[in-house]
Amino acid sequence: MPKVVDHMERKTHIAEAAWRVILKQGMKGATVRNIADEAGLSLGALRHYFSTQHELLAFAMNLVKERVKARVDAISKRDLPPKEKAVKILLELVPVDDGKMAEMEIWFAFTFYRKYAEEPFDALHDGIFAGIGNLLEYLDQQQLLRKDLDKAYESERLYALVDGLALHAMLDPERRDRQRVERILTLHIDSLCTG
Amino acid sequence: MPKVVDHMERKTHIAEAAWRVILKQGMKGATVRNIADEAGLSLGALRHYFSTQHELLAFAMNLVKERVKARVDAISKRDLPPKEKAVKILLELVPVDDGKMAEMEIWFAFTFYRKYAEEPFDALHDGIFAGIGNLLEYLDQQQLLRKDLDKAYESERLYALVDGLALHAMLDPERRDRQRVERILTLHIDSLCTG
Repeated sequence: MPKVVDHMERKTHIAEAAWRVILKQGMKGATVRNIADEAGLSLGALRHYFSTQHELLAFAMNLVKERVKARVDAISKRDLPPKEKAVKILLELVPVDDGKMAEMEIWFAFTFYRKYAEEPFDALHDGIFAGIGNLLEYLDQQQLLRKDLDKAYESERLYALVDGLALHAMLDPERRDRQRVERILTLHIDSLCTG
Repeated sequence: MPKVVDHMERKTHIAEAAWRVILKQGMKGATVRNIADEAGLSLGALRHYFSTQHELLAFAMNLVKERVKARVDAISKRDLPPKEKAVKILLELVPVDDGKMAEMEIWFAFTFYRKYAEEPFDALHDGIFAGIGNLLEYLDQQQLLRKDLDKAYESERLYALVDGLALHAMLDPERRDRQRVERILTLHIDSLCTG
């Protein structure tokens, strides 16, 4: 089905153009016209793939989530010591390199746009909280998690820690250092585990 | 000096009008005209107090910081058990009520405006990181902090936790519950202390 593949590829190309526009100009610059210009398409050609601005932006946001999820899934399948695997997965959620930084800025732009937009995007329910719950379950199944922990509250604490690290990395270049973030996440995971 | 007091009172009145406009319309609505309307003043009268939009918004942002600092200072002076005092201070930084929620939305609006504005505000260096370092020092002076901790990394971890809790409380009404946030902060402070 080459036609279908081409269609998805073209949509992805347009979504990536939308990301670049958002990174340069914020959500206020993310008009259909600006995105068409950035993608090197006419407005008419772009309309063939997305009939509304909302549809285009929702697709662009979703593509961020899919890429993060694909990276996390790949790490999950690797044969690594469990605590190291947990830290590596959490590191995928903090913008410690330029690619992740772009994703995070786009995610935040959508999140704040959502507050004031008439047709909100579902940027809050990003699957990160559920993923963090699964991570703690995994450490528990590996007999590593301390038995005195309240998993519900520990999920909330780790979720807040990861998004706080992400926020600070995004706002402050000094807090974007991979080793520094990795050290903090390792401290935290160690504190939840026995031994 | 009644004249000076009146001048400051009027500036504060205008800054509070700016907050209300930002809460309703976001930073894009925070024009001098909209703020003058909200404050019940003519443009000319407002210009008497602030000669530029930037000066007005910088004053409004600074007033948020001053109010948070005043609340934290008041708790610092109270005679409370040290760990309870630490948790109460940290709770002032998370929007668990409508007043704090408004402060947080304004702080975030400024922080994100800063990314794209030509004349940035100093919203990043909000004194919270330094305050958290002082809080850990205080627990250490009280002989409560575990001796094996790396205070530099623990300051970073707690700073990220607090801003993550604040971000989630701002975005999700379910995460705005005071008891829930207090429980997570208590868990964290307990984990840093002996006994």
